[in-house]
Amino acid sequence: MAPSTNTFNLATASAQQILSLANIRAVLQRLEDTIVFQLIERAQFAQNAPMYQPGAIKELVEGEGWQASWVEWFLKEVESAHARCRRWSAPDEFPFTDMSLLPKPVLPPVKYPNLLYDHGINVNRRIYEYYRDHIVPTITAKFNAQPTTSSSGTSSSSSSSSQTATADDGQYGSAAVRDAEVLSALSRRIHFGMFVSESKFRSEPQAFLEPIRQRDSEAVLALITKPAVEAALLVRLREKARVYGQDLDQAVALMQQGHGREGEDKDTQRKIEADEVVKIYETFVIPLTKVVEVDYLLKRLEHLSPTQLEAIEAGKGYIEE
Amino acid sequence: MAPSTNTFNLATASAQQILSLANIRAVLQRLEDTIVFQLIERAQFAQNAPMYQPGAIKELVEGEGWQASWVEWFLKEVESAHARCRRWSAPDEFPFTDMSLLPKPVLPPVKYPNLLYDHGINVNRRIYEYYRDHIVPTITAKFNAQPTTSSSGTSSSSSSSSQTATADDGQYGSAAVRDAEVLSALSRRIHFGMFVSESKFRSEPQAFLEPIRQRDSEAVLALITKPAVEAALLVRLREKARVYGQDLDQAVALMQQGHGREGEDKDTQRKIEADEVVKIYETFVIPLTKVVEVDYLLKRLEHLSPTQLEAIEAGKGYIEE
Repeated sequence: MAPSTNTFNLATASAQQILSLANIRAVLQRLEDTIVFQLIERAQFAQNAPMYQPGAIKELVEGEGWQASWVEWFLKEVESAHARCRRWSAPDEFPFTDMSLLPKPVLPPVKYPNLLYDHGINVNRRIYEYYRDHIVPTITAKFNAQPTTSSSGTSSSSSSSSQTATADDGQYGSAAVRDAEVLSALSRRIHFGMFVSESKFRSEPQAFLEPIRQRDSEAVLALITKPAVEAALLVRLREKARVYGQDLDQAVALMQQGHGREGEDKDTQRKIEADEVVKIYETFVIPLTKVVEVDYLLKRLEHLSPTQLEAIEAGKGYIEE
Repeated sequence: MAPSTNTFNLATASAQQILSLANIRAVLQRLEDTIVFQLIERAQFAQNAPMYQPGAIKELVEGEGWQASWVEWFLKEVESAHARCRRWSAPDEFPFTDMSLLPKPVLPPVKYPNLLYDHGINVNRRIYEYYRDHIVPTITAKFNAQPTTSSSGTSSSSSSSSQTATADDGQYGSAAVRDAEVLSALSRRIHFGMFVSESKFRSEPQAFLEPIRQRDSEAVLALITKPAVEAALLVRLREKARVYGQDLDQAVALMQQGHGREGEDKDTQRKIEADEVVKIYETFVIPLTKVVEVDYLLKRLEHLSPTQLEAIEAGKGYIEE
């Protein structure tokens, strides 16, 4: 009776099990829940703009020589702890901190099956920047005071909406814990695209030969994209954000005052808006995953042995080595 | 339009704001969501019994001289990172690791208002043990194989249900990240009882004088317990666990097959059972919170100045100093 959502352990399962579409789908769908949960957790705190400003915490600059932001320092500290637990040797985990700043694992290396080639892809900087510039401001906007300036637009600067004062509750530690969780889940989700790429490549490698040799990104993308799956994802994600983002404190209080269960899902206050979560996937997670997927595939042939390449060209499919 | 769930920053708000019942209620209710979310996150992995067995990871014993469990080592690593960010100097944060094993903060100390007296209370060992022995086995039971032994009870040992083989998916790192989150949320929730105690003591200190002097725990408890509030909490918690614990992957898939929204909340697979979450609060969180609340109050008078005590005895209420 093991539930279908239990996913494989990358260290002990076979490459075939891990790269099965059923496993990949289970991982990606489960990560949707995690991302929605952790976004909701972050959204309980204000934007706290200084958390993301390089050099804003003078003690870190003076005492630690740390020129980047508070959140980046917090990530480094937590990722150092995880490095000692060998998190970053797993093929589906990528740190935000430069590996040269992280300590060596205390535990001996794990022998993983051959899953991805040695790709060197890490888009965490782009994830961090989008998170800081778009996701945090959006999900915390409810805490901001209404702008007090008139709409004439003649004040000192109208170049950017970031000129509006944003809310600060001073809870930089608690908010950074949440930031690290959201970023980690987004990173795992987006980089997991490489497992999709590898899985699809192995299942019909011959189809990829010409597009990759032509460096035809569009054609490569077409081979791994299923618009119907993407549409279903967005419907599912909207439902998750709608359900999990409810503020049940209000809903239950209404029920207890005799308003019945219909209090749920009315236009009471919400913890997060479903539209916002869907937009994060539509405008950021899905497109960046595609970039990762295509970048990974464009160099895939360079990492085949002559025997593997020959087999593919002869229409004999992918041979595991 | 700042939402009511935004809670106060302990470093910048006044003691009166922080100890207001509205703020305390908001913190406790918000923590219910966090606890439910993080329990669901942990429940995606198997029990992984060796994670909690002292000395089970031989590399930690040999390389680090660490005799305790993997999870305790992971907690130490993460709590060390948080120590450098001065988390444990906050009056509502308590590490699971002995403070002597944690590094000093890199950031200078924060000046908090006078909230709690210097109490030295930390029940995290009890939280860890209950979590390990009851919560993890319960929320991960769905992964365990059906017992293969007959019900005759004559096998080698029938002394404990822990004799049944429990599931292990080998994902000790990912599961430990979740353990640390659940434990941290439970710890904050349970220790926050001291804020309840302090708040109620300050609002009617005279009522506490005799019970405390008599060391009458029952009477002290009666002064801070509201059965109606507790009953409402359990109703609210059940609703949160019911709603957030749904497996929407199945529900949405049914909807997309034309079954309409009624697919939600049917007897599809769930991520967590509402009964289990309610039981955790009923049998553990609420009773242990009361222990903390009463222990805190029983020594409250020793931490009053003569002026404060005099004022209370004269019926003039609590004077902040």
